[in-house]
Amino acid sequence: MRIVVIGGSGTIGSAVASRLTEAGHEVLTASRSGEHTVDTTDPQSVQALFERLGKVDAVVSAIGGGPFVPTPQTRPEQVQEGLSGKLAGQMNLVIQGLPYVSDGGSFTLTSGILNAVPVRGGAIAAAINGGLESFVHVASHELPRDIRLNAVSPTVLEESLDKYGPVFPGFEPTTGRRVADAFLRSVAGLENGKVIRIW
Amino acid sequence: MRIVVIGGSGTIGSAVASRLTEAGHEVLTASRSGEHTVDTTDPQSVQALFERLGKVDAVVSAIGGGPFVPTPQTRPEQVQEGLSGKLAGQMNLVIQGLPYVSDGGSFTLTSGILNAVPVRGGAIAAAINGGLESFVHVASHELPRDIRLNAVSPTVLEESLDKYGPVFPGFEPTTGRRVADAFLRSVAGLENGKVIRIW
Repeated sequence: MRIVVIGGSGTIGSAVASRLTEAGHEVLTASRSGEHTVDTTDPQSVQALFERLGKVDAVVSAIGGGPFVPTPQTRPEQVQEGLSGKLAGQMNLVIQGLPYVSDGGSFTLTSGILNAVPVRGGAIAAAINGGLESFVHVASHELPRDIRLNAVSPTVLEESLDKYGPVFPGFEPTTGRRVADAFLRSVAGLENGKVIRIW
Repeated sequence: MRIVVIGGSGTIGSAVASRLTEAGHEVLTASRSGEHTVDTTDPQSVQALFERLGKVDAVVSAIGGGPFVPTPQTRPEQVQEGLSGKLAGQMNLVIQGLPYVSDGGSFTLTSGILNAVPVRGGAIAAAINGGLESFVHVASHELPRDIRLNAVSPTVLEESLDKYGPVFPGFEPTTGRRVADAFLRSVAGLENGKVIRIW
């Protein structure tokens, strides 16, 4: 399959790109500063990416983040930044990418554990992940031409413990490899409308 | 208690305002064109509202909607419109309203059934409600001064069947009165971090 991995230069994105390549697929990576450049907060940039790439069999998104900030110190701009990035950005990949995905193709987005488990400063991340999973749940019923839509929800990665360890006290970390396997399972399998939890 | 009902001129908002008044509370209503005007998509307008009202014991939001549109026909502007309205709008009411809410006060937001049950054209509404419920789940742990945060999730109202009936085939409708009771329960009770489902 011909697969584009968006956010392909991040920790998860690069693990997914390696795993899909190893499984014999043709992998294109797109990020703010990669092989193919895209700013997923800008619908025009997303449109230009899909036009440049042409037909693909799968769109994989490993867009990260959203600001970590305690609720009482949160500012409206941080809400806006978080929602327009990982949430609206990934919703737009689906609605804008649909015409470019082959019959029977798929979209796999990135959610995360923070809507299920509250952590300090994680309220915006929770809103992003909760919104995304609900979008997947509903939109997966409406996609044409047997196109599927899933999300992978990782917990904290071993590879990210230096940076995020203090946010996740007592959480058993997973590996980029296990998370990447979940993406391969979504891309190459039959599941639709699912959130594949790696925790 | 002194309570502001934002979105107080809509079907749910006016039912809630009546119910809270009946229960003996002082109710202020705010909407795009009501007693107190506010545009909840604009953080400056929200800030000005809270400064004008001064201290309140409870903030109730009955902000509605988000566009109904099948996923394949959705445009990025509609995603943006939906997320900045009912989702970011209600998150901002909490983070901006906090300094104006009395010790032991509360926020009660409006979610809805559409993140739990997929309906045609409901993917943006699902993202909004799912995001909002996850935000409530996490942010409720971080509020200072014993301030509580809940959401009410109504199904379709009898009063709205003319407009929304076709979207909800076979759904048992509820009444504005029952939904309003759930808001009173949140405002006057002990619950925190809950989604009170009226379906």
